[in-house]
Amino acid sequence: MAPHPFKILNVEETRIARDTVLSLHKDVVVDFREIYLQEPSKELMKQYLDLEHAAKPGQSPASQRPPRLAKCQYDVVGSDKIPEYHESVIDIEQRKRVRHEIVGKEKQASLTLWEFQHLVKACDESEMFQEAIKEFKLPEGFELVVEPWPYGGLEIGAENRRYFQGLCFAQDTRNGNADSNFYAYPLPLIPVMDAHTRKIVRIDRLATGGKSDSLTGKTHSERVLDHCEGAEYVPELVAGGLRQDVKPINITQPEGPSFKVTDESLVEWQKWSFRVSFNPREGAVLHDVHYDGRSIMYRMSISEMSVPYADARPPFHRKQAFDFGDGGAGNCANNLSLGCDCLGVIKYFDAVIVGSDGEPKVHPNVVCLHEQDNGIGWKHTNWRTGRAVVTRMRELVIQFIITLANYEYVFAYKLDTAGGITLEVRATGIVSVVNIDAGKTSDYGNVVSNGVLAQNHQHIFAARMDPAIDGHKNTVSYEESHSAPLSPATNPNGNFYEIRKTVLTHSTGVDANPTDHRVFKISNPSKKNPKSGNNVAYKFSPLPTQKILAHPDSIQAQRALFTQHHVWVTKYHDDELYAAGRFTLQSQKEEGGVFDMAARKEEVEGEDLVVWNVFGLTHNPRVEDWPVMPVEIYQVHFKPSDFFDRNPAIDVPNTKNNASVLVESSSRDCCSGEGKL
Amino acid sequence: MAPHPFKILNVEETRIARDTVLSLHKDVVVDFREIYLQEPSKELMKQYLDLEHAAKPGQSPASQRPPRLAKCQYDVVGSDKIPEYHESVIDIEQRKRVRHEIVGKEKQASLTLWEFQHLVKACDESEMFQEAIKEFKLPEGFELVVEPWPYGGLEIGAENRRYFQGLCFAQDTRNGNADSNFYAYPLPLIPVMDAHTRKIVRIDRLATGGKSDSLTGKTHSERVLDHCEGAEYVPELVAGGLRQDVKPINITQPEGPSFKVTDESLVEWQKWSFRVSFNPREGAVLHDVHYDGRSIMYRMSISEMSVPYADARPPFHRKQAFDFGDGGAGNCANNLSLGCDCLGVIKYFDAVIVGSDGEPKVHPNVVCLHEQDNGIGWKHTNWRTGRAVVTRMRELVIQFIITLANYEYVFAYKLDTAGGITLEVRATGIVSVVNIDAGKTSDYGNVVSNGVLAQNHQHIFAARMDPAIDGHKNTVSYEESHSAPLSPATNPNGNFYEIRKTVLTHSTGVDANPTDHRVFKISNPSKKNPKSGNNVAYKFSPLPTQKILAHPDSIQAQRALFTQHHVWVTKYHDDELYAAGRFTLQSQKEEGGVFDMAARKEEVEGEDLVVWNVFGLTHNPRVEDWPVMPVEIYQVHFKPSDFFDRNPAIDVPNTKNNASVLVESSSRDCCSGEGKL
Repeated sequence: MAPHPFKILNVEETRIARDTVLSLHKDVVVDFREIYLQEPSKELMKQYLDLEHAAKPGQSPASQRPPRLAKCQYDVVGSDKIPEYHESVIDIEQRKRVRHEIVGKEKQASLTLWEFQHLVKACDESEMFQEAIKEFKLPEGFELVVEPWPYGGLEIGAENRRYFQGLCFAQDTRNGNADSNFYAYPLPLIPVMDAHTRKIVRIDRLATGGKSDSLTGKTHSERVLDHCEGAEYVPELVAGGLRQDVKPINITQPEGPSFKVTDESLVEWQKWSFRVSFNPREGAVLHDVHYDGRSIMYRMSISEMSVPYADARPPFHRKQAFDFGDGGAGNCANNLSLGCDCLGVIKYFDAVIVGSDGEPKVHPNVVCLHEQDNGIGWKHTNWRTGRAVVTRMRELVIQFIITLANYEYVFAYKLDTAGGITLEVRATGIVSVVNIDAGKTSDYGNVVSNGVLAQNHQHIFAARMDPAIDGHKNTVSYEESHSAPLSPATNPNGNFYEIRKTVLTHSTGVDANPTDHRVFKISNPSKKNPKSGNNVAYKFSPLPTQKILAHPDSIQAQRALFTQHHVWVTKYHDDELYAAGRFTLQSQKEEGGVFDMAARKEEVEGEDLVVWNVFGLTHNPRVEDWPVMPVEIYQVHFKPSDFFDRNPAIDVPNTKNNASVLVESSSRDCCSGEGKL
Repeated sequence: MAPHPFKILNVEETRIARDTVLSLHKDVVVDFREIYLQEPSKELMKQYLDLEHAAKPGQSPASQRPPRLAKCQYDVVGSDKIPEYHESVIDIEQRKRVRHEIVGKEKQASLTLWEFQHLVKACDESEMFQEAIKEFKLPEGFELVVEPWPYGGLEIGAENRRYFQGLCFAQDTRNGNADSNFYAYPLPLIPVMDAHTRKIVRIDRLATGGKSDSLTGKTHSERVLDHCEGAEYVPELVAGGLRQDVKPINITQPEGPSFKVTDESLVEWQKWSFRVSFNPREGAVLHDVHYDGRSIMYRMSISEMSVPYADARPPFHRKQAFDFGDGGAGNCANNLSLGCDCLGVIKYFDAVIVGSDGEPKVHPNVVCLHEQDNGIGWKHTNWRTGRAVVTRMRELVIQFIITLANYEYVFAYKLDTAGGITLEVRATGIVSVVNIDAGKTSDYGNVVSNGVLAQNHQHIFAARMDPAIDGHKNTVSYEESHSAPLSPATNPNGNFYEIRKTVLTHSTGVDANPTDHRVFKISNPSKKNPKSGNNVAYKFSPLPTQKILAHPDSIQAQRALFTQHHVWVTKYHDDELYAAGRFTLQSQKEEGGVFDMAARKEEVEGEDLVVWNVFGLTHNPRVEDWPVMPVEIYQVHFKPSDFFDRNPAIDVPNTKNNASVLVESSSRDCCSGEGKL
């Protein structure tokens, strides 16, 4: 049986795609970047899914199955040694190319992790860099570490070559621990590599001054690390040792989980059903999300993130990562670990990745799935009878975690028993730091440790929701609550407030407005709730987080136009998945991103539309963010709004959990003598 | 040994206070309302706590112990039968009154639950009411239910007598279930009782019309419930039965909890220590909150809540509860139940309440305390070595739940391993509804069930934080992040943004401002962080929720002036605990609340100050809120900001939890045949 159209390519399929590409490019070197599922066009999928959902159990609309396609991204290197970036779509069953694009040199393909390794090697081999390093007297036992980064936004007028930059640190090797935290010892130089020649072409010098110092002046001596201090996070090195009094909390499911995973990708849980997939750019994606047989979402993903840094001193304006577009969130996904990244009964999903030779291998445990309790779900006590009915909120969590050099993000989709979908981001990891002279402070960040300036920055995320509220033709509107004038006829006592509704008729960007309690609704204009008479809908209140602070004319702002609004509504078109456009690496301006999609001013009322939600964190670091920051948590809640006929969790049993115990019976010495009142 | 000054009065102490009051009021009837701990003045407590914290374990500064005081609230009914409201403070050890106030008749004391019972009885006995009810033909087997409510804001010019109002419903008794949901059958009349005479003095008639109908016109027939329908939430009556596939999640702590409770009120957990108390008005209160021996908070409480309804039709402008000031959140606290309201290893705290005779009794399990896991706390993977260090976030939850007729609130203080304090409110229960004619819709709410209009309303909360950041003299400031102009000298690439700081020098009210990422900091101006050089601080971002929508001149708005700002900073004065003032019942204007405190314009920079945080929910109900609404969750996070020298959770062990299992090993039939990729 052919795989379900939303299933990721397996190893065999990936290899067929690779071999087909290789067979089409003879006498040249093909350096692969990615091979992954090219999702079918929505028109084909709608037909397929309609049949699938109408089918009896066990049946499958195999005859309508869309062709199985692989997207292949690779460089072709001919005799001139200059790589040319290609994208091909391969029909797996036909072993045939069905689409081919040679991307012009004005666009940079997403980076691969092996390009990062080239930078480290280039630094080793660069005389210029070795000379520069010698200017510093590292403390005894310290060794250089080069941390590769994307180059950031290319300055206007700069030659459009492919570059990488390296942030430099020194690691204290005296403790013999390979995980000693080198970020505590930042060195003030950045080597820049030309990715084609793999040579270091320039070394940027970093200012280490404070408030009164100039943007570029050198103020440090050669002993630039002498005032720095260790800041270890691996348990065996943590200063003062670990706390000893955290007793275990065990989460067990003696009857097994309430979810069911079949066909490797189909998840069914508490009336929810959906498919999970994974790709190198977006990480985990949810498809065809249904509740109790009713469609809610065609596709849900995290689309992009931009992290601009606010240090005014060149070249820090080029510290601006697009972690999905530049390097691929899926590529950076952690292999998750039982009992660490999630507790309870865990189902892991694997991915398939390719090396530069296109050879596929399994990347295990990149997504985890588990249930969790999230406290009281609903409760009511009848004070007349004293009877309390209390139910728990149960959530199903689909989680993946990415590491981007120093930093990590924990992404989760959480479905709950009340029909809600929560998108959660946790930001953690090590904040990006630079050296600062002893005793100085800075307008560009906070001194979190001696000699270590954590630079102010923002994280701005874009989630992409392709809704299908009881069907694909939907409408987005927002409702606000407004005070009303006093009026004997309509508001005699001044307590009335009015709900105003605005329908978004054409693709556009709109902001959060908590002052007026602006709530966005994604509704089906052709289906009414039988109780209220309103159109069935899901609603969300965008987080009213700060938008990008970089000056509108700056390259930082121009290449992240998606950050201009909290909510974008665009008309659906196949293959428009990326908020900041297909190509973000070294971009100078966002192209083909959500800003351009919205600018088409297409009709979206009662159409197949896409909703983009932008939110973020202005992160002015605190000392407590060092050396690894506690999670900052952001959640966006999508909730049914007159979609159901009643609280969908009203049928959740109010079961008493028998494993809970009184502290008195769990631990004799816990409570002191005097007894109860 | 005398009890710790923050410990609630026990049964014996309460009885001494009662007896002392009775001995002072002979030849009259004394109707008690409340007897509870009068907390010591802060000056005395500061001395006591300084000694206590400096003392060696086991030692106690008993000689400095402030006198043990009871606040007694009671009506004195003389021969004229007109109750006079008194407040006395009794010194327990001396059995002596140390303060006495006869409150004027222009103020109404908080209601007691037995006054609610008077209303039900008065309806039974009222001919006028019985005649009014006879106008309706209830369906066969339905019985009247009267739901007592506070009267709301008294109209200007109305005689200031003490009233209660009753919302009327009918219960379907045919199922023989005393918990059948009568809210599904609302009757359009409101009896009003004079509390002194205990007589029904008026019956307000309710309009049941829709959008085109007048504010007061009668549009219903006598068979006003015929178009209503059942909406049951008790499990045995839920339509369609309960879902059967929720398998248990057990949370166990085989080694016991990590917390320790001694002296009935002192909680120690993960470097945190604090006292828990409970009083009839505020519910659970935290005192003397320390982390690792450093003071953070002198007192933390939920101070008030106002719930104004927006239905323009009289008398719905009087639907406005002040659930703390009117009736007392502590009085309405649920007796919590193991395995239902919280899971794991639970410690319960009891309260002591009095009846109208002043006789004390234990109100068990009004507060629960437990630990919980809240996902990943911090994580970093060194991509060079592949080593991931991941720790969990552990929280200690202090929770209480109140039921106010139809509605419930779950309040929780959550302390975490990263030095954070989260204040959480969950709103649940049954939304307040009125009858609406068949087929009509309304501008005043949403039709959530046939014949049932859930009225639009707001919930606006005020939390009170009495901080003590490394001492009692603190300063509140806010910081904003602002874009900066392009400038070759200071911002050559436009990526710089500026942090602007505003110090609040005098008591005032300030708003949230997420557009500029406004963050409030409570700092100690005389203590600097050794790393950053900034003053040690805790920070919070107020939720930018909508403020009160009632017209500024309306009684609803005037009696809730505290809702005018998200953050208030006032100078500390003993006994100023209530955001909307001491007396809210039937108030026409907030008096002695936070608005008045701020208006004194006292100096608060480097002073003993209080921070009030106001946030809320504009609740325009959805069908899914019926019959019991899924929790709406609001969280405010207080986090250290350069208070510590590093991430305080860096020493949390990255222990692997051994109870977690793969789904494959927990449930054979969970994952289908095809195996891994």
